[in-house]
Amino acid sequence: MASMSTLFTKPTYPAHSLPKPFTTHFAPPLQLSFKTKTRPRSARIRAGLIEPDGGRLVQLVVEKSQRDVKRREALSLPRVKLTKIDLQWVHVLSEGWASPLRGFMRQPEFLQTLHFNSLRLDDGSVVNMSVPIVLAIDDSQKHSIGESKSVALVDSEDNTVAILSDIEIYKHPKEERIARTWGTTAPGLPYAEETITKSGDWLIGGDLEVIEPIKYHDGLDRFRLSPAELRDEFTRRNADAVFAFQLRNPVHNGHALLMTDTRRRLLEMGYKNPILLLHPLGGFTKADDVPLSWRMKQHEKVLEDGVLDPETTVVSIFPSPMHYAGPTEVQWHAKARINAGANFYIVGRDPAGMSHPVEKRDLYDADHGKMVLSMAPGLERLHILPFRVAAYDKTQGKMAFFDPSRAQDFLFISGTKMRTLAKNKENPPDGFMCPGGWKVLVEYYDSLAPAGNGKVAEPVPV
Amino acid sequence: MASMSTLFTKPTYPAHSLPKPFTTHFAPPLQLSFKTKTRPRSARIRAGLIEPDGGRLVQLVVEKSQRDVKRREALSLPRVKLTKIDLQWVHVLSEGWASPLRGFMRQPEFLQTLHFNSLRLDDGSVVNMSVPIVLAIDDSQKHSIGESKSVALVDSEDNTVAILSDIEIYKHPKEERIARTWGTTAPGLPYAEETITKSGDWLIGGDLEVIEPIKYHDGLDRFRLSPAELRDEFTRRNADAVFAFQLRNPVHNGHALLMTDTRRRLLEMGYKNPILLLHPLGGFTKADDVPLSWRMKQHEKVLEDGVLDPETTVVSIFPSPMHYAGPTEVQWHAKARINAGANFYIVGRDPAGMSHPVEKRDLYDADHGKMVLSMAPGLERLHILPFRVAAYDKTQGKMAFFDPSRAQDFLFISGTKMRTLAKNKENPPDGFMCPGGWKVLVEYYDSLAPAGNGKVAEPVPV
Repeated sequence: MASMSTLFTKPTYPAHSLPKPFTTHFAPPLQLSFKTKTRPRSARIRAGLIEPDGGRLVQLVVEKSQRDVKRREALSLPRVKLTKIDLQWVHVLSEGWASPLRGFMRQPEFLQTLHFNSLRLDDGSVVNMSVPIVLAIDDSQKHSIGESKSVALVDSEDNTVAILSDIEIYKHPKEERIARTWGTTAPGLPYAEETITKSGDWLIGGDLEVIEPIKYHDGLDRFRLSPAELRDEFTRRNADAVFAFQLRNPVHNGHALLMTDTRRRLLEMGYKNPILLLHPLGGFTKADDVPLSWRMKQHEKVLEDGVLDPETTVVSIFPSPMHYAGPTEVQWHAKARINAGANFYIVGRDPAGMSHPVEKRDLYDADHGKMVLSMAPGLERLHILPFRVAAYDKTQGKMAFFDPSRAQDFLFISGTKMRTLAKNKENPPDGFMCPGGWKVLVEYYDSLAPAGNGKVAEPVPV
Repeated sequence: MASMSTLFTKPTYPAHSLPKPFTTHFAPPLQLSFKTKTRPRSARIRAGLIEPDGGRLVQLVVEKSQRDVKRREALSLPRVKLTKIDLQWVHVLSEGWASPLRGFMRQPEFLQTLHFNSLRLDDGSVVNMSVPIVLAIDDSQKHSIGESKSVALVDSEDNTVAILSDIEIYKHPKEERIARTWGTTAPGLPYAEETITKSGDWLIGGDLEVIEPIKYHDGLDRFRLSPAELRDEFTRRNADAVFAFQLRNPVHNGHALLMTDTRRRLLEMGYKNPILLLHPLGGFTKADDVPLSWRMKQHEKVLEDGVLDPETTVVSIFPSPMHYAGPTEVQWHAKARINAGANFYIVGRDPAGMSHPVEKRDLYDADHGKMVLSMAPGLERLHILPFRVAAYDKTQGKMAFFDPSRAQDFLFISGTKMRTLAKNKENPPDGFMCPGGWKVLVEYYDSLAPAGNGKVAEPVPV
């Protein structure tokens, strides 16, 4: 299993790319209430929002009054050290993004996830679950756990993070896990290389009790709203529809057009107040994606510049790591947003896709994500909104929905093109991205210049 | 796509291993009625037997009065030549083993199979479907089909076998198909090498009309009972429970003990007349499996020698090709038997498993097949009966259920050991297999001797 030091020195979160702390300040309606923590949990699920999977939002953070007791209990238990990505999964589980999952998967959940992308509950109902949420341990950790029924999960500095109880240890079939999750076993899958290939030969599942809320102390914690907090915010805003937009890239005006148009369509359908959840992924991403802190800075500018309406937009961070597992992963992205109260999900071409790590082609058929999502077990309640293709309309000087009848008027600006422009401090056509947002991108690539390996990053779709 | 000549010269069905035609003669109760063909189709589903998937057994063979019309219609259509294995799938589809599937999969069925091992029907219900039943075509075939809505499927001698209509042609993502079906992409998977790797880059789905029942003219067609014919037979015998035993190996007395004991247990549960469906797989198998004709001869001896009771046993051939895809494939094996009327399914260790083609280990965890089967969507109606381990009890001189409290009394005779004994014309311990059955095995390996490559075949579990 990777040590924390290994993970921290990997280029995934390159230290030189971290910007100086900045004040992210969104317009007033985005200043979200954090009062929910003191409310009784049962009050969290409000009428009007879609029910969480399993009927009840799972929350695994120990009540304040019990924390010292649990910390003492943990001291007597065998310890399992968490990697940075393990900790992101503890975060995900602790807040119920994976409801009704109550901890790292035991073997029955793991197998159902791999084979069926869904879990059958005791009452016979089915919830979606497409990516394994598992914790790997190696032989020596397994040996040290021995016959113990519980373990303490600790961070890189040996602080107790959680207790995992009623544990089950089972074999970690790495090749099979990779093949069934990604549909390939080619070397070079970022998440697999980071967390699976070099990890232990065993998986440990069990019920999780998290001692206190997971925080990263990176200046962005206040944007990491839990599903319960998001549900409260949507309720506070009297949302009668919530549409989620998952992203891991800067927002350009094509995205903005899509989101604005979605709201327009929902109003046409009769909804009175559809709220957009603009939900950048905050966990592990591959080295050539723009880091979270820069993306948040860019998103902030997009809101400031009025490209999206702060009155009807909630910007928050989705704490999950990224698999880049295309049609398999897009289900997870959608399912987690149901738990946060979203009943509409925008899906683009090739969601969660990437280039094949070895062959010169995309890893997934660009249409499969949308098709698989629309047929996925356990997602029947979610309305899937297919992404309309936007491109730069030269006649209007702005991003517009592509009209094939006058294809010659449109300019497609790829991720590669966008990055090359930003790296060279050139400007894209007016109207491609708001100037404040573009400036952030230029600054980001400027901050990378010292690395100077001269490589042009690969295209990265939203 | 492989030409027929390529397939016929592969060692899969080695010409030198085919025995001379022999008369397979089972005891009288096994002489099955074939009168069903003249009965109205709606009468086929009888009270008392489990319903087929989708509620109605699919049957795709054209009525006799329409065959000439369909043959003429086919003459005007673009032609797709079927490989030997394609033809086995036409057979499977034509008789409704894959009900409610009505032809080769279109893309939505293909994707649901790969990702969910199940299909959602129009009424919202779910049926199991774990292996893709698809037809591959290459660029030139796709080109020759052009805009046609239908194609004629023809055999190696250009005889019209079927019409595929309302077709959909879509990309054949070979790597992904292999990875998601087998959980590995290692070279050397028999079915993948035979039918996927070298096949065309496109798949063609559509509705199938099969001109006449598929026959092989190998002396075994009379054992190839369709699901409808099996249902009739079970009804004729007044079965109130049907338990299926899938196999692709010779039957030894351990198997027989298991089957006999299962009937005993079902009687204890209150069933009055449980019937065993002894159901050897008849389609493609890998080169080192014992060929169907020899297995049928061996099964015949087992019945003749009274090891199984002909009164309560139906021996028939399951026409499917073999994937060796472990937990994924065992679902197909079980699902197909529901369509044939079985409501109990016996599952052993590592069903449909094999050695990893590259690494020195089994491809699948021996327990995963049973676990996956017990959780599989669409198989909730089927009772899964786990295989009890039988071994040779030296104190009794016969096969018995393994008793760990006196492990030293038991002898495990592996597939490799069994084959080595048969090849050397040695005898196994008395009571391991009936003498008539053993003699068939010795004859089979004797017939192989001229090949003389000196290789010892790999272990082949049931």
